[in-house]
Order: sequence, then structure tokens, then C-alpha cells
Amino acid sequence: MKIYDAIVIGAGYAGLTATRELLKAEKDVLLLEARDRVGGRVYTKYYDDGSYLDLGAAWVGPTQDKIYALAKEFGIQTFPTYDEGKSTLLFNGKVKRYKGLIPPLPIGSLLSLDFAIKRMNKLSKTIDLEKPWESLNAEYYDSMTLATWMDKQMSFKTAKIMFKLAAEAIWAADPNEVSMLHALFYTKSGRDLDTLMNVKNGAQEERILGGASQPALRLAETFKDKIRLNSVVRSISQENDIVTIKGDGFEFLAKKVVVALPPTLAGRINYFPLMPANREQLTQRMPMGTVWKTYAIYDKPFWREAGLNGLSATNEGYTTVTFDNSPKDGSKGIMMGFVLGNQAKAFSNLSEEERKTSILDSFAKFYGEKARNPITYIDHSWAAEEFTRGCYAGLMPTGAWTSLGKALREPVGNIHWAGTETSDVWNGYIDGAIRSGERVAKEILS
Amino acid sequence: MKIYDAIVIGAGYAGLTATRELLKAEKDVLLLEARDRVGGRVYTKYYDDGSYLDLGAAWVGPTQDKIYALAKEFGIQTFPTYDEGKSTLLFNGKVKRYKGLIPPLPIGSLLSLDFAIKRMNKLSKTIDLEKPWESLNAEYYDSMTLATWMDKQMSFKTAKIMFKLAAEAIWAADPNEVSMLHALFYTKSGRDLDTLMNVKNGAQEERILGGASQPALRLAETFKDKIRLNSVVRSISQENDIVTIKGDGFEFLAKKVVVALPPTLAGRINYFPLMPANREQLTQRMPMGTVWKTYAIYDKPFWREAGLNGLSATNEGYTTVTFDNSPKDGSKGIMMGFVLGNQAKAFSNLSEEERKTSILDSFAKFYGEKARNPITYIDHSWAAEEFTRGCYAGLMPTGAWTSLGKALREPVGNIHWAGTETSDVWNGYIDGAIRSGERVAKEILS
Repeated sequence: MKIYDAIVIGAGYAGLTATRELLKAEKDVLLLEARDRVGGRVYTKYYDDGSYLDLGAAWVGPTQDKIYALAKEFGIQTFPTYDEGKSTLLFNGKVKRYKGLIPPLPIGSLLSLDFAIKRMNKLSKTIDLEKPWESLNAEYYDSMTLATWMDKQMSFKTAKIMFKLAAEAIWAADPNEVSMLHALFYTKSGRDLDTLMNVKNGAQEERILGGASQPALRLAETFKDKIRLNSVVRSISQENDIVTIKGDGFEFLAKKVVVALPPTLAGRINYFPLMPANREQLTQRMPMGTVWKTYAIYDKPFWREAGLNGLSATNEGYTTVTFDNSPKDGSKGIMMGFVLGNQAKAFSNLSEEERKTSILDSFAKFYGEKARNPITYIDHSWAAEEFTRGCYAGLMPTGAWTSLGKALREPVGNIHWAGTETSDVWNGYIDGAIRSGERVAKEILS
Repeated sequence: MKIYDAIVIGAGYAGLTATRELLKAEKDVLLLEARDRVGGRVYTKYYDDGSYLDLGAAWVGPTQDKIYALAKEFGIQTFPTYDEGKSTLLFNGKVKRYKGLIPPLPIGSLLSLDFAIKRMNKLSKTIDLEKPWESLNAEYYDSMTLATWMDKQMSFKTAKIMFKLAAEAIWAADPNEVSMLHALFYTKSGRDLDTLMNVKNGAQEERILGGASQPALRLAETFKDKIRLNSVVRSISQENDIVTIKGDGFEFLAKKVVVALPPTLAGRINYFPLMPANREQLTQRMPMGTVWKTYAIYDKPFWREAGLNGLSATNEGYTTVTFDNSPKDGSKGIMMGFVLGNQAKAFSNLSEEERKTSILDSFAKFYGEKARNPITYIDHSWAAEEFTRGCYAGLMPTGAWTSLGKALREPVGNIHWAGTETSDVWNGYIDGAIRSGERVAKEILS
């Protein structure tokens, strides 16, 4: 039986990048993917009329150099997220419109909110991105949730609610699910909170023309004979420096293996010998966030005519944040509403009809009655995807970084770990996934 | 192919009890067990010379009526944990001996500690054991870790250290890994903190003669033709009210299935159709605690002659709590040291020789130089057990109870859930496991 130099498991951006880098070094590589497509948590759905929707990760922004470089390499363009006109705030039952970044809230709350954001940015600067557990006061911040920190930091209720909305949008989790140390790590990993939150100069600044899957699809095209789709890996055995990888109806041998999956999925593979206890316990402690993306498609972006940019935030209903996701040429109106964290969990208990009604009701509150009658309504739950089981990413609850963080990237025999969760820069993003693929390839080649 | 009335997965106390109850109702039942033995996290290792060690759960105590009843049914006796003489406290480098429950610490710290324990007991009374998420201030307590609450509650550092030692011994986890709501739930579930901590009138009051596996072994004996060992279940499919259970080399059909596994193990089975998103996300959020049990066996319990009861607590070294685990007749001296929470994680990185040296060094500090020369040293890590992956139990981190708690016991089609983690009384204990088995059988029969 043939022995590959390396087998990569998972054809998201991490696995695709690892494969490419190993192929560049003239290694004999096989890339196994459970789904019938590449891209992982990045999934552009294409429709017969030429339109498309990004059901997974969608935006790119400044300092995400790796995804920009990849897009550029294939001549794929990016374009600005629509951001002209006023934003909408539906707060305590009242709709308010405003320009710029500062929502129309009482000055005390605004100052409190601003102070908390600045404080968090400042604290995040002390984080050691490569070894968060060695950061100043690591144990202190890993012993409290982000929610606890927010409670301590802000006395104004409105400030807390607004901070929570932002946190939910950044982590697709309730602040009570996230370790403060992880929140600080993640903040620095993506530069700062402002960058993570914003459209302009932020992580939502641009979109990829043709959809966020394009660079993945084009990259995969360059080595498509190395990719085996529909191949769910069930077990990985290490013996005598040879790794055996088995799945439903296949078996392959390799010298090195890259597992480019979210930690919770990596933890479900059966390993022989078993993973070291600390690696095993870590993968039990990195749950995926919870998010639904909901889309309403209209014949045009009618809110633009009303001087609205399609950005909304609210503390009522299931969808708490919306974005204008219309195509670049504005030939259709596409409104996207995020359902995040605990709202996403509750949303999962609704019927499709209830979900649709609730979302369109929210959109109508933000943008008027026209919003109730889209051509199509579509929603997508990543927690219900067998080969992802939640989005955006695996999150560290309290205690995990400081007691088990070392096991996140440390190879186990000939098994190496990739995936955006292993990245020190842009952790949780496409850019981080690509970086992790480059890092793991270097690890193997060195 | 035969269709069983019910198939039970996991032959720990929960699965054994469920099987027995269903058999009593004249159902056709099959019990599948991954290991080559029954008992699960309860595992008495028997030696050729007639001696034995409880490598898993070991003690029983007041109000654990179910395990007492089961033992009694088979004429299995219990006997008191050795508790005569003085306890030992090694604190900040100094050994102190004391009688009774109150350690020799500065009065300010003692009062602070006592106040915190009373406060926690009082708070725990407000918990709705069946629906913790509906308790008073559930969200408030589920948003903070036990560590955060301890920090708020106690200003004396020594009080905090002592409370932490107790918490680690109760949950086999660092206080920063446990939701305060879960800590309150668990406290009430086992009556109160005093009961959870203590030997006399507490959860460590007695041991089972012949080992804690005895009732399981005897119970299994009564329906041994219904048990299939060495049967690792890989997938459960539901279609047309028939459930298909597949494993390595076997396939069975049933009308009902009981999954009597810790949630993190239940989450690894492949379900068709997939689990509902909230069940899936819950099992990602219930990591197992971390514990090593270490044993040193001597020709006699020499510490007893020095007037010591074998109970020690310390804030230095890996083992922080010890118990006299000698046989009832005192014919040997068996000292047991727990390595818990973060100490257990770090302990996993040591070689066997390093582990032995470290434990015997601790024992020598507590009980004198004789402790350095046992006949045998034995240790056991539950995180390294494929079919448990951590002990004592699956724990709720912050946010899980309030956002996903409902999915813990709620049947999914014809799949029902058991295991000590699903019990409202004595959650995490053998007694809770038995209760969960009875509850799930009732659920199926009703």
C-alpha cells in the first residue's frame, strides 16, 4: 500500500493551504474532505440566476493579508460592504437613525461603553498571542467570563446591553460562555475591538466578488486530483512512524497527518493510541459558537432609497444585527440578519415558518413594511451541520487556555493540528485558517 | 432481524439499573457495553492475594438510599471510612494536626470560610433541581464561575485556598471551570457542601465491602445473558420508529434506546438523523472533570499508630487530599491521594517514576518517612480511559445550564438519556446514576 508523505484532513481554508504548501515542497499529499465540497465553514451557495449567498464566513478587512493575497493571486476582486447612509438602532422599542459609529444613546452610557472598549483594547495588548497562558494575569482573566468582566466594568445597563450585542456578533456566543482571557486573546488576534466590530477599517469592510468560497474553489482547482471528497475520517492510528487513516470504505497510509478541523470535531476521531489526556480534555472544552444566518431577498435594496445603510442593531427579537448583503451592482436587495448566541439556540426550537415570520418582523421594524414581502427567505444553522457543528469557531470557556492551552497546537507523534482555532493572528477568521495552514506545513517540513 | 423492546448503551450503574427495571416490566432488553467489564466509572481492581482497590468511585453516605438499597439487596455490607485520630494540614510549608472538622487556621480565615460555606448552602436551597435554569437568579449565577463567586465572597486568601481545595475535591475541577449555577445545583443535589465534603455524615462516610463494583457485578449477574461486552456503539439511526444501533462488527434493532453514557461520550456517537442543534451543542459543553487516584500500599496503616486518621489536605504538591483506604480489618495500610483539577492535568505530563516520587514525597510530609517505602505504588487517570475520558463527571461550564439545560434529559425520538449527569439527586455520584436508570425506565414504560 502506498505511503503518502502527508495526508490532510479537512478541506477548509486551513487544509487547502496546508496541502498547497506541502505540494510546493514536492511532497506527495492527499487531502480528505468529509463533505462533497471544499471550503468548510466558508460556503457560498450559487443559484441558477447567477446570484449567490455566503451562508458562512463572508467578510474580509484590513490586516487580513493572507486572504487578500490569495484572492489577488487568482484575480478575485473584493468590494466594499455597503455603508452609505444612516444606521438603525431599535432600542427599548424605539427606532433611531444615526450617522457614523456612535449610537444615539444617553451620554453616560456612551461614555461607559467607550471606556469599556478602550479598557479591553488596552488589556488585550498584554496578551502573548502564541502562549496566552503566559500572559500577565492570565489566570485571573481565565477565571472569569467576559460577562463577569462586563458587569464589573460598566455600571450603566444600556452600556452593558450594547457591549453584549457587539460581543455576541464577534463571538457568536453569549458573553457568559467565553473566558475573559480568550476574549482578550481574540481581540488582540484581530487587532482590537474596533476592528472586529466595524465595517469601515474593520473586519466587515469588504466582501469577495463571487462569494467567499471563490478563493477556496480556485485554489482547490489547482490540485483537484489530490482531493478526495465525501471521505469522512473515523480513525487515525499511529504505529512505527506510519499513520493509518480509516473512514467509511477507505484506508490510507501516511508519514504525517494534518488534522485541519475545529477541535471539537478533531476530538471525535478515534485515535490509536489514544490522545494524551490533556489533548483529549482540551477538545472536550472547545465548544463551537452558535449562529444562524438569515437572508431576505428583495427585487431591490429599498432601504438605500430611504437613506439607510442596512446596518441595524437591536436588543429585541432574534436577529440583533443586520447587514446589507446585496450584490455589488445593487441589482437585488439582500438583507442579512445574524441570530447569535443564546438567541440562536432558542431560534433552533422554532419551525421554519416561525423563523421566517420573526426575522421579517424584525426587518420590518428596521426598514419598514416592504421588508415583510421578500422574494425569498433563507436561513442556515451551522450547529446543524454535521461536519461543522457550530460557528463561527471553537471558543475557550474559562480555565481552558491556562490549564490545557499548550495542547492546542502541540503535535502528537506524527499528527499535526491546523484550523483557524490554532492561529495566533485572526483566530476564528478565514485569514487565521490560512495562516494555520502555512504554519502547519512549515512544522512538517522543518 | 429481531427487534428488541429496548437497547441500553453503557453498563455503568445507570445502564444496569435501566436494564433491570425494563426487564422487570418484561421487556426484551439488550445491554451493550464498550468495555470488557460492567461498572463504568466504578471499577474495583482485584488482586491475586484477595485485596482490592477502588480505582473509580468508592464511597457512599447518608441519603444515598438507592446504592444502599442495592447493596443490601445482595447482602453486600458497607463499613465506615477510617476516621479515628487527628487530621493533617500541610499549609504554607507547615504540618499541623487537628481533631474534628475545623482546620487550625487564623480565626479571620476560618470565619470567612465558614461564612462562605453557609452562604453557598443557603443559596443552593433556591435551586430548582429539575430545572436549574428556572431557579431564582439562574442567569446571574450561570454567568459567573465558582472562582469568581469565591473571589467576591472571601477576602481572606487562606479562606479562598481552603475553599478551593474543597471545591477541587468535590468537582475534580478547578473552580474556574465550573459555573456557579452548576456548583449550587450540585451542592443541593447532594444535600449541602458539608455533606459533600465530610466523612462523618457525609458522602465519604462509608465504603462498600469487597469494593464499589460489587453491587454492579452482582446485579449484572442476575441478567448476564442480556449483556454484550466489548461492544462499542458507533452509530444510532432512527427511521420509522425503529432504531438501528451499529458498532464494530454488530448491528441491532430496537424500539427504544437508552444512552447511559456521560454526555461527552454520548455526543461522539454518530446519529442519523443528526441530533437537534441544542442537544449537539450541549454535549460539546459538558467536559469531564480531571482526576488521578494514587495509591500506596504498606504492610500496615502505620499512621494510625501515630494517632492519625489518614485525612490530609495541603496547598502544595500534586496530591492535595488523602484518605485512609485500608481494608476494613486493617490488615494492610492503603493510603489514597487524590490529584485533582489543574494538578491532575499537570500530573498527566509526568513520567510514572516522577508521579510516584511526587506522591510518596507528599505522603512522607503528611505521615513521616515510612511513607516513602510502600510495597506497591499504583495510580490511575480517568482522562486516559477511552470509554470515560475524565472523572468524576461531566460538568457544566458557565452558560450551559441556562441556554441548553433542557436538552440534557429530553428524549430525541426514541432515544432516551441516562447517566449520573442527568440525575437531579446525587448528580455525579453512584446514587445519582441509579436514580437516572430508574427515571429513564419509567420514561420508556409510561
